[in-house]
Amino acid sequence: MEQTIRVKAPASVSNLSCGFDVLGLALAEPFDVIELALTASGRVEIEKIRGCETLSTDPEENVVGAVLRAIAVATGGKTGFRVILEKGIRPGSGVGSSAASSAAAAYAANYLLGNRFNATELVRFAMEGERLASGAAHADNVAPALLGGITLVRSYDPLDIVRLHVPRELYCVVIHPETEVKTAVARDLLDRQLPLETAVRQWGNVGGLVAGLYSEDYDLIGRSLEDFVAEPKRAALIPRFSEIKSSAIVSGALGAGISGSGPSVFALCRGEDTAVTVMQSMREVMLASGIGFEAYMSPVNMAGAEKI
Amino acid sequence: MEQTIRVKAPASVSNLSCGFDVLGLALAEPFDVIELALTASGRVEIEKIRGCETLSTDPEENVVGAVLRAIAVATGGKTGFRVILEKGIRPGSGVGSSAASSAAAAYAANYLLGNRFNATELVRFAMEGERLASGAAHADNVAPALLGGITLVRSYDPLDIVRLHVPRELYCVVIHPETEVKTAVARDLLDRQLPLETAVRQWGNVGGLVAGLYSEDYDLIGRSLEDFVAEPKRAALIPRFSEIKSSAIVSGALGAGISGSGPSVFALCRGEDTAVTVMQSMREVMLASGIGFEAYMSPVNMAGAEKI
Repeated sequence: MEQTIRVKAPASVSNLSCGFDVLGLALAEPFDVIELALTASGRVEIEKIRGCETLSTDPEENVVGAVLRAIAVATGGKTGFRVILEKGIRPGSGVGSSAASSAAAAYAANYLLGNRFNATELVRFAMEGERLASGAAHADNVAPALLGGITLVRSYDPLDIVRLHVPRELYCVVIHPETEVKTAVARDLLDRQLPLETAVRQWGNVGGLVAGLYSEDYDLIGRSLEDFVAEPKRAALIPRFSEIKSSAIVSGALGAGISGSGPSVFALCRGEDTAVTVMQSMREVMLASGIGFEAYMSPVNMAGAEKI
Repeated sequence: MEQTIRVKAPASVSNLSCGFDVLGLALAEPFDVIELALTASGRVEIEKIRGCETLSTDPEENVVGAVLRAIAVATGGKTGFRVILEKGIRPGSGVGSSAASSAAAAYAANYLLGNRFNATELVRFAMEGERLASGAAHADNVAPALLGGITLVRSYDPLDIVRLHVPRELYCVVIHPETEVKTAVARDLLDRQLPLETAVRQWGNVGGLVAGLYSEDYDLIGRSLEDFVAEPKRAALIPRFSEIKSSAIVSGALGAGISGSGPSVFALCRGEDTAVTVMQSMREVMLASGIGFEAYMSPVNMAGAEKI
């Protein structure tokens, strides 16, 4: 009899303003679910994709295929997988849709294979999905989607992922305006060179944010949520960005910014009550704009990918 | 009768490899001592400088004069100061010589004036000494010299100094080869623009180092001591730099790099025994080179500037 497993992996907010390409935070929802079976076919078959009509079931064109092929190769090439994917996260929303599918696939495959790979190896497999999706094997979404919590990609070579301390009262609100921003387009907007002074300001804030998380200093977390690199370039891609951001801050958020390459906008808050108020305030901006949107609110998801 | 106070303020290691312009660590030695008296003259008089023949006693040309004048202005301009300065730190050594004098002056003046200024205000006064010494009002040495411990300058505008958690077993070894490196020359070597990828690697390490300090993960501290910005440019200014650095690492240091703009070289170590071995090994490189040097070893100085 075939062995089957169901795994869910969450959406995530990468960058967190100052931590471009290195920081990421796992949300409780939305999430993707993968149903994975080990087969003797030696191939990856994507049987079905629910919840999204635009993604290909061709394993060469789906991130899940890229991840599972990499795992199959690492195990000697004889392993086959059959996949049913349930997309809870919209592709192109900026909350790590491809990363969640990739993380779920890596976690599920590892489980079926007797947990032979460690966390870093799983992140590396999941990064193959990101390579297919965006042309660059980033880890800032797959790391939190797999490991949960707030993660730092200290280094890519060698790959070194640090799971940071997460203050218990930290909540995240995400507004996803219905506009698609292609990661590749958002990346092309960025300057390839930074003035040294700008870089210094950015890493001062990375240090401040990490210190704020460990010391549970919510004000410091808020002060550190500044982005001098991506937000000034990408804000124009997002309808009503500055209004959404300022409505969050006025309503008590610690800070707010662009989730990943957008168009989702995130706000960090202290405590659930504040998060509810902040979400309401961000929703009102969107309702007044007439632009369709989705809204999510959650504590930091400490589990990451998990069996369901 | 005139009120007099004696204050010492320590040398410091700024940058700590990855944290260019934002991180600094206070050493236990060497240190400068200031003897300060409040006078009714309305002027700053530097009566004597011991331990250094090259510094001017003209308050317009000495960092202590710049700091005390700024404080006099802030108090309404009628305050006068008389100073005796005992230099324990060699100017131009790269361990915050001007910062220690400036920090001692700011701390002593504040004490005599009834502690009317807070820590951030004192850092700002001491930065006036740095402005005179190097043309730029940096805080990465004055903050640890004043406050002790390991400090992060999260932001200059507004000035926001964060005192980071310091693991108890952290020791610092410093070798000062007898070559002077002018801060201005060392700064001119740096590229004014950084490739985005280089900046990302640097702030990944800043995040890693701060996380390592808080979580007392000495390996992570060591892995994060990488510098892609200043060290590649400045290493050539320091005789035997790569040999000194590798001797430290081979002997068990967590990591090593250039202290500030050099020529001093620092190494961080876990525990006093390792620090002794590392210092010995770094000394041997210098002894073999025939170049004069001084060597220091200390735990992190948690006090900073203090009354003696």
